[in-house]
Amino acid sequence: MLATLRRGARRPSPIVVGVTTPNEAAAPDPAVPDPAPMTPQQYGVGARFTLSVYDSDYVAIILGALAAADPSGLTLETNDISTFVAGAEQRVVAYVLDVVAGAARSGAHLSASILLSRGCPGELQCALPPGTAALAADPVSLEATGVRARAHWSLYPLLDAAASPDSAPADHMAPIYAAIERAKAEGVYSGSDHYATRLDGDLAAVLQTAANAWIGVGRRVQHVVTHLTVSVNSPSPIRD
Amino acid sequence: MLATLRRGARRPSPIVVGVTTPNEAAAPDPAVPDPAPMTPQQYGVGARFTLSVYDSDYVAIILGALAAADPSGLTLETNDISTFVAGAEQRVVAYVLDVVAGAARSGAHLSASILLSRGCPGELQCALPPGTAALAADPVSLEATGVRARAHWSLYPLLDAAASPDSAPADHMAPIYAAIERAKAEGVYSGSDHYATRLDGDLAAVLQTAANAWIGVGRRVQHVVTHLTVSVNSPSPIRD
Repeated sequence: MLATLRRGARRPSPIVVGVTTPNEAAAPDPAVPDPAPMTPQQYGVGARFTLSVYDSDYVAIILGALAAADPSGLTLETNDISTFVAGAEQRVVAYVLDVVAGAARSGAHLSASILLSRGCPGELQCALPPGTAALAADPVSLEATGVRARAHWSLYPLLDAAASPDSAPADHMAPIYAAIERAKAEGVYSGSDHYATRLDGDLAAVLQTAANAWIGVGRRVQHVVTHLTVSVNSPSPIRD
Repeated sequence: MLATLRRGARRPSPIVVGVTTPNEAAAPDPAVPDPAPMTPQQYGVGARFTLSVYDSDYVAIILGALAAADPSGLTLETNDISTFVAGAEQRVVAYVLDVVAGAARSGAHLSASILLSRGCPGELQCALPPGTAALAADPVSLEATGVRARAHWSLYPLLDAAASPDSAPADHMAPIYAAIERAKAEGVYSGSDHYATRLDGDLAAVLQTAANAWIGVGRRVQHVVTHLTVSVNSPSPIRD
């Protein structure tokens, strides 16, 4: 990505929040009011993505896509490697969709490397300790774009070995298998390759499936990351 | 990536191996010979990567880079989204280095999205059960390329909540923090951004640092994945 594409960037405020451990949550004291729930930014909800355009006119294509995307409610920071987007799940994923779909409409072949993360805000270190109660969020809903996308998708529930059995599944693969089953039910599952699940469908459906699996696992697991490599307008024949 | 770039691809053989659980390993029976150690391919050692070239001449640039890379000892499979590389750690990482460095020497701006994985072979499901003894490997050693790379890097130790405290650290962030300290000592640490550590140095040093952290954590944790988004020849000013 180009640093010159920076728009609306600002440093997020330092994150200083009171957190609730699972044990505290299990024995609430009615005399003490609940702390205000964390905001998505305090919980570290966001994306980091790199949009790559296989075309010598990539600057104009990327600038055009950014101009068409709605940054409202988001914190954006772009450097020469990737772009950081923070905000509520629906806004973050809708923004990534807007940028990638906008670039795709140029007709150029492109790929997007997308990371979504929840539960580990901060830079060098997680600003929330392990054991912070998982923060639920509503699933995202994205409008179809008419852009066909194919993706390799991986989902990482980052469990801690000492986690309570009540707060997280014992096997990190179990929620991954469940997410793959949901992708099949949603009609965007295309196959499973080594290290990644292949998705195929409207770009909105592909991102929605990945994001809602990430949000779904995040109802029980604090730190959840998902990665997608999305390919659009590839000249390669599709063999599956 | 182009499917037309496929070379030397073949389906890996089905993975059927005897595995050793940590408990069995702790009480060896001298009357029973050790099973042959797993091969890297049986242990699921490999990469999946997408090389994106921001240039209308991307086909020639990618084909040229592939022609210069040594595929010996590797299983390669390319589709329209990404390329899978399986083999021993040194060969896998050297191959990715060769391809990316070769494309970089064209002078074109490019990005590479790279996933390295160990401990979870197979496609739809891990072919090794949780609790398989972690398979150690030697660190990789890569020759400098003269190509400067900047990268956003993430490391994921995929612990299971039920894992033995002897076999894995209790906190999934601890090995990540240790890997960041090693990157600082190795001189390629450039900073920590949200969700990723920024690396800056010769492309070989950047890949070597990430790969050796992945291998190092893999001495204790079975399933370890690391992701890099590498940027080379960006026209953007570097602000850090």
